[in-house]
Amino acid sequence: MNEKIQVISKFALEGLETQGLHDEAMAAKQTLESGSGLGNDFLGWLHLPSSIDEEQLQAIGKSAAQLRSECEYVICIGIGGSYLGAKAVIEALSDHFAAYKSGNGPKVLFAGSNIGEDYLYDMIDLVKGHKFGIIVISKSGTTTEPGIAFRIFKDMLERQEGKEFAQRNIVAVTDARRGALRGLATQEGYATYVIPDDVGGRFSVLTPVGLLPIAVAGFDITALVAGAVEMEREGDEQVLNYAIARNALYRNGKKIEILANFTPRLHFLAEWWKQLYGESEGKGHKGIFPASVDFTTDLHSMGQMIQDGERTLFETVLSVGDQDHEVIIPSDEKDLDGLNYIAGKNVDYVNKMAELGTRLAHIDGGVPNLLITIPRLNERFVGQLIYFFEKACGVSGYMLGVNPFDQPGVEAYKKNMFALLEKPGYEEATAAIKAKLNK
Amino acid sequence: MNEKIQVISKFALEGLETQGLHDEAMAAKQTLESGSGLGNDFLGWLHLPSSIDEEQLQAIGKSAAQLRSECEYVICIGIGGSYLGAKAVIEALSDHFAAYKSGNGPKVLFAGSNIGEDYLYDMIDLVKGHKFGIIVISKSGTTTEPGIAFRIFKDMLERQEGKEFAQRNIVAVTDARRGALRGLATQEGYATYVIPDDVGGRFSVLTPVGLLPIAVAGFDITALVAGAVEMEREGDEQVLNYAIARNALYRNGKKIEILANFTPRLHFLAEWWKQLYGESEGKGHKGIFPASVDFTTDLHSMGQMIQDGERTLFETVLSVGDQDHEVIIPSDEKDLDGLNYIAGKNVDYVNKMAELGTRLAHIDGGVPNLLITIPRLNERFVGQLIYFFEKACGVSGYMLGVNPFDQPGVEAYKKNMFALLEKPGYEEATAAIKAKLNK
Repeated sequence: MNEKIQVISKFALEGLETQGLHDEAMAAKQTLESGSGLGNDFLGWLHLPSSIDEEQLQAIGKSAAQLRSECEYVICIGIGGSYLGAKAVIEALSDHFAAYKSGNGPKVLFAGSNIGEDYLYDMIDLVKGHKFGIIVISKSGTTTEPGIAFRIFKDMLERQEGKEFAQRNIVAVTDARRGALRGLATQEGYATYVIPDDVGGRFSVLTPVGLLPIAVAGFDITALVAGAVEMEREGDEQVLNYAIARNALYRNGKKIEILANFTPRLHFLAEWWKQLYGESEGKGHKGIFPASVDFTTDLHSMGQMIQDGERTLFETVLSVGDQDHEVIIPSDEKDLDGLNYIAGKNVDYVNKMAELGTRLAHIDGGVPNLLITIPRLNERFVGQLIYFFEKACGVSGYMLGVNPFDQPGVEAYKKNMFALLEKPGYEEATAAIKAKLNK
Repeated sequence: MNEKIQVISKFALEGLETQGLHDEAMAAKQTLESGSGLGNDFLGWLHLPSSIDEEQLQAIGKSAAQLRSECEYVICIGIGGSYLGAKAVIEALSDHFAAYKSGNGPKVLFAGSNIGEDYLYDMIDLVKGHKFGIIVISKSGTTTEPGIAFRIFKDMLERQEGKEFAQRNIVAVTDARRGALRGLATQEGYATYVIPDDVGGRFSVLTPVGLLPIAVAGFDITALVAGAVEMEREGDEQVLNYAIARNALYRNGKKIEILANFTPRLHFLAEWWKQLYGESEGKGHKGIFPASVDFTTDLHSMGQMIQDGERTLFETVLSVGDQDHEVIIPSDEKDLDGLNYIAGKNVDYVNKMAELGTRLAHIDGGVPNLLITIPRLNERFVGQLIYFFEKACGVSGYMLGVNPFDQPGVEAYKKNMFALLEKPGYEEATAAIKAKLNK
């Protein structure tokens, strides 16, 4: 097989001049590859796929096998890039109703990505009396959300299954040398994996941050990485297509990019994409606002707005080629619902016509359309998609004129929260915020 | 108790002139209530809560009890307004991990809201060999997505459990007299409920469309309706607040409204809201683009963009007062993670400080902030919230100068899809679209 994901931009760029943008994109790619641009201490993801060796994958596989052998549930604790990548890949590859079905290893759950008290209560209630493991993912080990969740579940696991079981079934993914979690892991003798210094959170899914949870969920991380390597080696044409098209559209007043899928399992891939692009480009009062929809579901909610609201949108459709299974539409003698004209067809045939019909309708309505084709949803092509989006994000961000690898705005809420919580060291900020609130 | 949801707009309107808007809003409310505006044949929702009597609720309760008594799974088949309302309320009131837990009646599943072949396959695989029921919701009975799903699961249920079991455990929610589903239900002797002619899909959650699935999931629909009645009778001040604020912001260049929650169970309430506002307002090349985020999760993905991207956003925070359960943050002797300063606090205390800190940070960043406070997540307050959003949508849409009760743009993709599928009656459209594609 020599299939690859493809970007088709012909319905996006009609009437737009892109020659100059092509040169800009080539220059941005050169800046990225030569490491001469902004944020160039965070380019570890660029050659990450091809640098992962068999030994590393085997080590991760061994930890995954340990967790799979003893645990009914594995709680992945992390937020942002330490959550979305694994969640996205696992969902894209899983049975839609895996939560309801037993068998095939532990259920992978996610905690520490919110501060929901009832959420944590319901999860505690779920794993109570059941053997569970923990993958705790944090560069520093002091981030509030995962910190709280890890305190709670570590404490619970040690009480419930004993210290030794906990030591065997807690794995830490953290900084190589520094930080609270590194220190704790050393003390407790947890297995550990490293978050490289030069890979930012939203680019980390192909490090142990994503690979370990994905392996625990039973998926083939070797194939995932191999897919990413294909795009690292042969993906530049698609990368340039996408980066050029979205910058051309943005400069022509298209302020919102809607990532649309017709495949429910891609829902969280879009959430991962929103972090990747929103956090990379949303700075200095610029950047395309990333939104996502699941079609045809959301054609019956956001469809009207996309078809006929403000003409400041463009749409990027993720189109999956083959389905894994076949379901045939049954025939009905009486045909009261009038669907016999599609009886005997498989369901995806109808979905593909809905997809094409939707693209044409939105184009007619003034919504430029980009198409990204994915041969099917398996590890290889999801790996391709990940690397493709990452590299296109780097190129696109440089074309926009921002540092795509920082996220200074994420600190603002944290600083206020620490002040309000009266965290030691924030005394001045506490006084200031209290004065402000009492005004 | 005399608690109600509240809208607080003081951090949204600083420096904006709203006096004229107040008069406009009063006029729009008058137009709505007098039934003299556009789309006035779809105002049945306006006095719906107070017109539901005990008898209707009891009948729905009886159907729900039948399904609960014989079924392990109940598949709700519907799309758009025949899906999102029930889904939103059930999620808002459910255990976060209900899918993993047994007990308390049947699991409620949703089909017919997409055309995912693997999605349907995985659901078939789930219910195979298990007793299940179906609630099929469609005004016409010929909508493609639910039509396909209903064919498949009706056929499967009759083969698996026999015709009589199917007749007992299929309930149709449809037109009072006309349509394919009404005809079929009469032939088969299904229990039926009526979708009123004067209530559009996105305003239908307090009809049997929403009430029956919600009752099957085990929730108190009497309390839900009672909450809605409270807002029907005493909600106008909040309705006006919200409608005025969002129109003021839109006219001042705020093109995107982000509905933010700090309570994961509100995720689908936001999806319902997106349909309500997007489909009502997104027409004639205008309307606020509705987006949603789950915080603090998405502070680590969309947070950067909200804090510092294009300043065309405003934010509406859904703030839930009390949690249902308590989880205390444990103390740790070594305090490596530095979280002992919040040990002994309950988790929601931290979440509330995150919420306040986030609002202040976003306001400082130039994102006007609306706050909607909800005393807690139970049937009563969810009912309040639903009616509040519905009425504010009507007022807001009239202020925008559109018909908030139609959705002409939703037909565009369907027409193309039918042409591509060569549906009988679409011969001309088929020829035209093929010619276009072959160009």
